[in-house]
Amino acid sequence: MSNFTSHLKTLLPDTRLSLTQEVLPILVSCLVEVAQALRSAGKVSQVGSTNAHGDEQLNVDLIAEKVIRSAVAKCPAIASASSEEDPVERRNEAPASTASESAEKYCIAFDPLDGSSIIAPNWTVGTIIGIWDGETALRQNPKEKQIAAILGVFGPRTTATIALRVPGSPSACFDVALGDNGSVEIIRPTVQLKNAADVTTRYFAPANLRAAAEDEKYMNLISHFITHKYTLRYSGGLVPDVIHALVKGHGVYMSPVTGVSKAKLRRLYELAPVALIVECAGGMAVDEQGRGVLEREIAHTEEKAGLICGSREEVEFVRRQLGLE
Amino acid sequence: MSNFTSHLKTLLPDTRLSLTQEVLPILVSCLVEVAQALRSAGKVSQVGSTNAHGDEQLNVDLIAEKVIRSAVAKCPAIASASSEEDPVERRNEAPASTASESAEKYCIAFDPLDGSSIIAPNWTVGTIIGIWDGETALRQNPKEKQIAAILGVFGPRTTATIALRVPGSPSACFDVALGDNGSVEIIRPTVQLKNAADVTTRYFAPANLRAAAEDEKYMNLISHFITHKYTLRYSGGLVPDVIHALVKGHGVYMSPVTGVSKAKLRRLYELAPVALIVECAGGMAVDEQGRGVLEREIAHTEEKAGLICGSREEVEFVRRQLGLE
Repeated sequence: MSNFTSHLKTLLPDTRLSLTQEVLPILVSCLVEVAQALRSAGKVSQVGSTNAHGDEQLNVDLIAEKVIRSAVAKCPAIASASSEEDPVERRNEAPASTASESAEKYCIAFDPLDGSSIIAPNWTVGTIIGIWDGETALRQNPKEKQIAAILGVFGPRTTATIALRVPGSPSACFDVALGDNGSVEIIRPTVQLKNAADVTTRYFAPANLRAAAEDEKYMNLISHFITHKYTLRYSGGLVPDVIHALVKGHGVYMSPVTGVSKAKLRRLYELAPVALIVECAGGMAVDEQGRGVLEREIAHTEEKAGLICGSREEVEFVRRQLGLE
Repeated sequence: MSNFTSHLKTLLPDTRLSLTQEVLPILVSCLVEVAQALRSAGKVSQVGSTNAHGDEQLNVDLIAEKVIRSAVAKCPAIASASSEEDPVERRNEAPASTASESAEKYCIAFDPLDGSSIIAPNWTVGTIIGIWDGETALRQNPKEKQIAAILGVFGPRTTATIALRVPGSPSACFDVALGDNGSVEIIRPTVQLKNAADVTTRYFAPANLRAAAEDEKYMNLISHFITHKYTLRYSGGLVPDVIHALVKGHGVYMSPVTGVSKAKLRRLYELAPVALIVECAGGMAVDEQGRGVLEREIAHTEEKAGLICGSREEVEFVRRQLGLE
């Protein structure tokens, strides 16, 4: 048994055998394939098509989608899957396990490659995966039913942050480094977001900063972070921006919705998995109305929202300042 | 002859044979080794030592330093080299070429791994190399004597931006993608920074934003960029931040020096090579006094300064707003 599977066994109950031995190891392994495909992509190009959301598709988006779909097809315990590139929950046609069909049934919702705008300049990008109990992620209680999430990070190294919150077991959030040879090394056994009193540097990541031009509250918030000497780190990629806070142990990411700027992030493919990761690291994630991301059922794969997430007290502060409570 | 060397031959005169066939190809190739070393570094750790500037050294800093030093040792035309990790110009003990000793003599000044603060979260980092005519980079006219620069970019892919400005030849700035197998593909034959009228999106990257808390001019400048709907991208790594502007074709990077914040960037290892790249792409780079970076001789390897660089009209605007002219 691999090092990674052994680690999962210490965190998950015996009733989650397929999740421990099949679903998580296969999904995490396929991130290496995505990394390798990106690495050899050389010139990033637009394929000329648009996805279901109307975004322009890049060659690398399609490659990542294909790699993850192939991984899903190897997991009989995954009953259905949908993605930002193909946002329809489809039954997974994986061959049933030869030994015995798994009693576990999962639904996967993923964004194969998040951060299109920063792929050309060769900045770090990521993959977001949410794993749900049962055959669908729609019209479920996300707090109970989304039981795991993975953020794959493609930068100088290939790393991933994994969160687990299976009913009846303690939650967990940890980091792994993925080797080209298939190795999975636990590099940070506990990922923990702290409050300001426990860190030397405080970080903020303001998305959609243009919106501050027409929103006095957002502008005041930015001034607050500057005058209180927070350090700015904002890549414009949701995965690297959230990972930055998780690795540093502090930070707040804000993608507010204002009178002139619409919600941009997908609840199913972006908000929900990121919220699980952040909550399992002791942080907090709320939507543009200030409501806990995971407190609201998702009715359609296309739903969009705003997001404020990171260290708990920072999120609470932003929510208050933006008048969202 | 490789594809890359052929490309260099079209840009450089015959009198620069060692530069074309040896110095540039070897330095660019070694970036792949740095990328591979970073990739397998797994957990980034501090080695417990500090470099000559008092910065904490990371294991990956030392690995990159070693890889580049080995490359330098293969180039008889490199007479001397110094780096941010070992900032003393030392004679290169490379074996003289067997055929005939090169008439060309170059001095290399490099920052092996720029962006220490963002290595742990797995964000894109870079290598900066300046190539100078002659045996030293000190007390020279940078405008004439720094004849080439390389920015290596370690992200999902390994890429590099290369600028050439050899007296008597037209200047050039282009991008390459580096394959693990040693391939060098020209992915952008001309890198060009444009003015606002020629782009759809304008970008700004404000370093040391905390300084705006005590500097009204810097704060007003930030407000200007927000209210004029510039898009924020700020990684905190000089290489990715400058590369972002170059790839997007527009942007301004600012690391001002204020009453309370000291200059942080090294003239020799950071400012000069970045300024050459930006100028060869049609942009502009000035120091904290608003003076052209390459207009001032560097007397010591340790000199530090502020930097404003990017699209010409943006740099001129920032210089004016900060009262630097």
